[in-house]
Amino acid sequence: MSTGFFGDITPIKYEGPESSNPLAFRWYDKNKVVLGKRMEDHLRFAVCYWHSLAFAGLDPFGGATFERPWFAPGDEMAMAKLKAEVGFELFTLLDVPFFTFHDRDIAPEGASLAESNKNVRTIADIFAKKIEETGVELLWGTANLFSNRRFMAGAASNPDPDIFMYAAAQVKNVFDVTRELGGQNYVLWGGREGYETLLNTSLKRELDQLGRFLSMVVDYKHKTGFQGAILIEPKPMEPSTHQYDFDVATVYGFLKAYGLEKEVQVNIEQNHAVLAKHTFEHELALANALGIFGSVDLNRGSYTAGWDTDQFGMNVPELTLAMIEILRAGGFTTGGFNFDAKVRRQSLDAEDLLLGHVGSMDAMARALVAAAAIVEDGTLDAHVETRYAGWEGDLPKAILAGEKTLDDLAAHVETTGLDPKPVSGKQEYLENLINRFC
Amino acid sequence: MSTGFFGDITPIKYEGPESSNPLAFRWYDKNKVVLGKRMEDHLRFAVCYWHSLAFAGLDPFGGATFERPWFAPGDEMAMAKLKAEVGFELFTLLDVPFFTFHDRDIAPEGASLAESNKNVRTIADIFAKKIEETGVELLWGTANLFSNRRFMAGAASNPDPDIFMYAAAQVKNVFDVTRELGGQNYVLWGGREGYETLLNTSLKRELDQLGRFLSMVVDYKHKTGFQGAILIEPKPMEPSTHQYDFDVATVYGFLKAYGLEKEVQVNIEQNHAVLAKHTFEHELALANALGIFGSVDLNRGSYTAGWDTDQFGMNVPELTLAMIEILRAGGFTTGGFNFDAKVRRQSLDAEDLLLGHVGSMDAMARALVAAAAIVEDGTLDAHVETRYAGWEGDLPKAILAGEKTLDDLAAHVETTGLDPKPVSGKQEYLENLINRFC
Amino acid sequence: MSTGFFGDITPIKYEGPESSNPLAFRWYDKNKVVLGKRMEDHLRFAVCYWHSLAFAGLDPFGGATFERPWFAPGDEMAMAKLKAEVGFELFTLLDVPFFTFHDRDIAPEGASLAESNKNVRTIADIFAKKIEETGVELLWGTANLFSNRRFMAGAASNPDPDIFMYAAAQVKNVFDVTRELGGQNYVLWGGREGYETLLNTSLKRELDQLGRFLSMVVDYKHKTGFQGAILIEPKPMEPSTHQYDFDVATVYGFLKAYGLEKEVQVNIEQNHAVLAKHTFEHELALANALGIFGSVDLNRGSYTAGWDTDQFGMNVPELTLAMIEILRAGGFTTGGFNFDAKVRRQSLDAEDLLLGHVGSMDAMARALVAAAAIVEDGTLDAHVETRYAGWEGDLPKAILAGEKTLDDLAAHVETTGLDPKPVSGKQEYLENLINRFC
Amino acid sequence: MSTGFFGDITPIKYEGPESSNPLAFRWYDKNKVVLGKRMEDHLRFAVCYWHSLAFAGLDPFGGATFERPWFAPGDEMAMAKLKAEVGFELFTLLDVPFFTFHDRDIAPEGASLAESNKNVRTIADIFAKKIEETGVELLWGTANLFSNRRFMAGAASNPDPDIFMYAAAQVKNVFDVTRELGGQNYVLWGGREGYETLLNTSLKRELDQLGRFLSMVVDYKHKTGFQGAILIEPKPMEPSTHQYDFDVATVYGFLKAYGLEKEVQVNIEQNHAVLAKHTFEHELALANALGIFGSVDLNRGSYTAGWDTDQFGMNVPELTLAMIEILRAGGFTTGGFNFDAKVRRQSLDAEDLLLGHVGSMDAMARALVAAAAIVEDGTLDAHVETRYAGWEGDLPKAILAGEKTLDDLAAHVETTGLDPKPVSGKQEYLENLINRFC
Repeated sequence: MSTGFFGDITPIKYEGPESSNPLAFRWYDKNKVVLGKRMEDHLRFAVCYWHSLAFAGLDPFGGATFERPWFAPGDEMAMAKLKAEVGFELFTLLDVPFFTFHDRDIAPEGASLAESNKNVRTIADIFAKKIEETGVELLWGTANLFSNRRFMAGAASNPDPDIFMYAAAQVKNVFDVTRELGGQNYVLWGGREGYETLLNTSLKRELDQLGRFLSMVVDYKHKTGFQGAILIEPKPMEPSTHQYDFDVATVYGFLKAYGLEKEVQVNIEQNHAVLAKHTFEHELALANALGIFGSVDLNRGSYTAGWDTDQFGMNVPELTLAMIEILRAGGFTTGGFNFDAKVRRQSLDAEDLLLGHVGSMDAMARALVAAAAIVEDGTLDAHVETRYAGWEGDLPKAILAGEKTLDDLAAHVETTGLDPKPVSGKQEYLENLINRFC
Repeated sequence: MSTGFFGDITPIKYEGPESSNPLAFRWYDKNKVVLGKRMEDHLRFAVCYWHSLAFAGLDPFGGATFERPWFAPGDEMAMAKLKAEVGFELFTLLDVPFFTFHDRDIAPEGASLAESNKNVRTIADIFAKKIEETGVELLWGTANLFSNRRFMAGAASNPDPDIFMYAAAQVKNVFDVTRELGGQNYVLWGGREGYETLLNTSLKRELDQLGRFLSMVVDYKHKTGFQGAILIEPKPMEPSTHQYDFDVATVYGFLKAYGLEKEVQVNIEQNHAVLAKHTFEHELALANALGIFGSVDLNRGSYTAGWDTDQFGMNVPELTLAMIEILRAGGFTTGGFNFDAKVRRQSLDAEDLLLGHVGSMDAMARALVAAAAIVEDGTLDAHVETRYAGWEGDLPKAILAGEKTLDDLAAHVETTGLDPKPVSGKQEYLENLINRFC
Repeated sequence: MSTGFFGDITPIKYEGPESSNPLAFRWYDKNKVVLGKRMEDHLRFAVCYWHSLAFAGLDPFGGATFERPWFAPGDEMAMAKLKAEVGFELFTLLDVPFFTFHDRDIAPEGASLAESNKNVRTIADIFAKKIEETGVELLWGTANLFSNRRFMAGAASNPDPDIFMYAAAQVKNVFDVTRELGGQNYVLWGGREGYETLLNTSLKRELDQLGRFLSMVVDYKHKTGFQGAILIEPKPMEPSTHQYDFDVATVYGFLKAYGLEKEVQVNIEQNHAVLAKHTFEHELALANALGIFGSVDLNRGSYTAGWDTDQFGMNVPELTLAMIEILRAGGFTTGGFNFDAKVRRQSLDAEDLLLGHVGSMDAMARALVAAAAIVEDGTLDAHVETRYAGWEGDLPKAILAGEKTLDDLAAHVETTGLDPKPVSGKQEYLENLINRFC
Repeated sequence: MSTGFFGDITPIKYEGPESSNPLAFRWYDKNKVVLGKRMEDHLRFAVCYWHSLAFAGLDPFGGATFERPWFAPGDEMAMAKLKAEVGFELFTLLDVPFFTFHDRDIAPEGASLAESNKNVRTIADIFAKKIEETGVELLWGTANLFSNRRFMAGAASNPDPDIFMYAAAQVKNVFDVTRELGGQNYVLWGGREGYETLLNTSLKRELDQLGRFLSMVVDYKHKTGFQGAILIEPKPMEPSTHQYDFDVATVYGFLKAYGLEKEVQVNIEQNHAVLAKHTFEHELALANALGIFGSVDLNRGSYTAGWDTDQFGMNVPELTLAMIEILRAGGFTTGGFNFDAKVRRQSLDAEDLLLGHVGSMDAMARALVAAAAIVEDGTLDAHVETRYAGWEGDLPKAILAGEKTLDDLAAHVETTGLDPKPVSGKQEYLENLINRFC
């Protein structure tokens, strides 16, 4: 029985590019096969609980704008159950295969951690039934270790070891719930793992604490036989002045330092990439090059604002560049495209929640089709191969194999009078090539 | 015999804070002992060749503004010799203990690498005599692998292995010259090691090439018995759209990936830190925490412009925060403060070259005095120690030692009903404390 | 009778630079005469209600951290009265001459505007007594036209004229209260006067609405005989994607367009300047050049974060550059330095509220002393005068008087063979000069 | 007779979307009629001389990469003539209707202004013939008042009146040439009209100088009967730390201050908009709202780099938003899309010059088609109209007419108990709508 929140809206269907129905897919046709795989299996969309169900429209200059029934005062657990009902209505109306959540999104905090955990478990039991009924699965779960004031100075990186322990206990609970619900990954988002001022901070201590915490989670994964991936989500700043998981390269160095680079992968967000002065495709390509690509938080940041705006990704050419890198990485395994995106604070209507997702799913579907065409066409990849072809020679191979010294090369240059000339990088040619397929 | 370039200006002397002589030190008193060491030995100032002697005032919108005698057309080697004369006049007028250079700053490029190398060596021979005569030493040398069009797509990371080899041969020559001149470090600055567009780039290949190149330099250091440090200088972008040595954290991950983290340290620049969205003190503190702090390129970036402005550092409170981190790292060993700073394009007078350095040396001296006072006072460090004091307990120690699991901690939280409360971070108190000493 | 909130802290006193008492002024000595005026009369400090009394420590990633007694649930008006008591304790402990507020900071919103207005008036009556008792005066009042969801799409620039009218009615009430309390200015802060997306926005309509609204406020000022200034506060973005009052230059153009440039001045904030890619001193100097300098919201933004951080200004050299411009503008008349600054979210202690203000008041006092010394010394101003001295010649004067044409000047250049040469801008010399006085 | 620079490349033709010929238009079909006008007449493309013919590939870290025949040493005027030949080959191969230039792009600087002017005129005579022969027309001319060191501290805003006069004489010459060649506009680009440091700057004086200079140009236009538009090009910074023509809003305020808002329009550049923290479409919409929209410098800036990259615009959805604003402004009259874009420094091939333009012309053609479809569809504009429909009521009209006071509105709110409710801004709906047409 429906909650009625979405009125008489029926599940979104694919109607093709010519449709003018705002509540239809024009490009996302889940069963359409692209590069040998169904669109749905390529894109593995997930709707997140926090932006679409828990966010009330607050910003630093104003209060709630969304008057959802489940924000009403009264019995908090009843409201959490209503929220879960509406959540699965949202997931099924959108026909997405996955959802994601933080523990505090789904159930109210109790008077103690034990009570909070119990609340989470109560809702998780509802989820288990809903998953069974609807076929919508859990892409990943995570712990909210940043909203409560106890975490104001971080969780694992907190100067107070009691808070580290509290966080560990909280993670254990969400990890268990995630595993039991068949979650395909477990995510550690930086939250407030960072600092406000170096004046009161020991970087060395905090990094060691973070390394230890992550190692404990990895150990727990192995102990419990969890088959999914452990993911870290890079972000350079906000809420902290400096976040330790700044970007993909930083996370890689951190993993190497604590011997975890084979155990943990990254969950990359477009808006976080932009805040770190990278392109989205850079972060994806780098994660692939370093062997730590895991999943994606799909959204779009503002290029004029300097904070995380978490808008729905809509720009097809930009998404195409990202999708090319994901195809190059072999596509998702346990990962997927999680919509870490929210409707604007002024988008008050229930319908708006659907429109944001529909538009971005369509944009991403177009990007997939374009990226697949580029990959199939092969011109782009062949161009890159050719550009580096010189490295297939014997001497270059010997260099890369560590068999040559500076002296060797200096002698070679002198003997041969080597005077290499540059060749065009053909950037405009390649940009035009991309546009031909978008 | 003087070149006359600086007219009748005599060596800059310390005259004390009350002096109104623009060409005097008011705070930098090289023999003054601070924390048991002479100011000169703390600060180890170096003047760089490129900005002060080779830069002609060009910017992307205009040509040369500096009409130096050594920019005159004609015999290039004669001009290079004149430049060396003026250079050592500059170093001795400023009474700095060190200088730094790229090979292409000091001598013209020849028709072949062999000829270019010979030109470099000719000037190096002059340097050797000047070093002997003046006591000014070489802080570090480096190779210019970015100005010539052959390097437009990078040097070690170039898709063409011939350019890699050419670069290797060039580095060998500058390395030899640096070693022979008693240089205390050898620097690899990113130059164009980065990319313009991912469309034509293989990140994986280029990172492997960079790793190999650096390993060859490290091997060569050991082979030749060079006692100095090998330094990499992080920079996030410019001239490339993306530079591989983005920031300290990125360089650390790169060094770990190629097993070089014990062999190579970082040369940190304030302006590069700002371009990467970090504070200067963050980069210093992180390098110290990761064990790779080496040296500093001292300058100041504009907070409104988005490119490298390389201005002289003048802001004493900001420099104090940086100096605190350097003192915490134990101060410089082979490193120093190299002025990677240039007078503005409109600062046409010979005198301006001196004024820029004098002002920044004074600002840095004040920062040293303030930082030393803060360290001696001890309140700041004690505050930080106290903040983390909880980690000295038995259970926290066991956690950090890897002896506890998530289950253990979850059980502990449940048993004890642990409900930790946050305490004030005291940021304003600490900021006021710093200001008290500035 | 004290509320006890600040414990046994006694009013902050000047103790001189050598004091190590964190709760003492080391530089701010209110009766000290600088350039013929008491420090207090130069600086005209105000404490703002919103950050110090109404802000609970929320940020976009977490809830309240400050557990103030007046945030307790229960009788909202009783809490508002308690807040007013504590507020005046804060003002008097700090010994500041002024305070500032929004209507919604001081009293709870009622079920109707009439009830809200009544609540405001009730607290205003308390203020009137407190002002009488303590001598602390009102620098300015303003209306909160952005927190309530009704204003989510702006107030005066709202597409719905009913919201324009509601805002007008609300402003009238705060204006009346401000005038009756002896407020020296009335401020219009942009709030949400801007847009989220151009797709649903008519710029032309919204600018006309804003122009009309401001004209009505100006008319009301004249009608009521208010003697203070009307101030607009520029800000480029946040909360809106684009704020109409982007910066000083934009506000000037807007005032000119609606004929209000003689009626309205600007209230300039450092953090807003930085977000608009300006320096603080630029905005001050420009306002002075355009004849619209009014008042200052004193704070400091982060150069790495891209949002409004509203930290306490602490950097004396930067504040000195700002103070120079204010002295050049003749100092404040009705304006002052309002602390639009908040203690960090982790600064939980009552004491922290005092420490933030004390440190920044001290920093500003040092900046005043330095700026006054620079002005008295005269070297800086004389340098600028000399640089433009050529314009005092007859031909240049005739040009500026509009008596010469392009033809005249072309003929002059040809006849005289004019070939002007550039002279040094002496930036390093001038930066050193500033540092000598800081 | 061809110079042979472009080898055997023949004029670019429209071949339709399915073509895989890199040197063909796939979307730009100049005679295709859109909204009643030929594509060519809508878009009015111009190729600029400076980036495509005068730029040698320098950047702040390296020298020339482009080895064009006309950069060879020797007879400078002969080289300038060769450049002109190649230029018109470029224009005709691309089949663009317009070109643009600075005086210094087309001819070498002489020993005196008289000689420089003569050089410009010599090339202008060649242009006159070429224009006649090819039908390619002059969109606009401008003076380079920034490259020569004499302009290092500005031209019209220079502290030295002799430089102001020199600039005036130079402008007169280019203005005359522009008029005689049938140029449709005359542009004043900010160049170095700004400051490096406020320490040596009088804002008030420099703004007055700028106002006078511009007034002289306007007077000269009227005197000479020039029928084209006078355009100012906003830019926030670079090369100067602060440029006076910061953005559209700033230019508007400046024009109002000097009574020139009816005489002068703006030439808007995408990359400059981004550097000023605006979107391209914002600057266009604002110029239209203020009545000063003139022309466009078409390019694309990097969102990660902080300087002017002047890349070719390729992102169709972004260009569509811009094109919508241009259609709303009624399209171009004397203005057009000037490609202020350059091939990357690594794009060495002659062909690359063509590829950059072809790709961006195609992207812009697609944007035109999409924008026209959105305008014809009408849903977007109707949505905006409806959103503001309340303002068509009697009371709102009276408000805007200035017939109501704050008292009136306060009484109205109180009497009616007005309590307006917000409605959804429908941003996601509108973004999806745009994507439907892209």
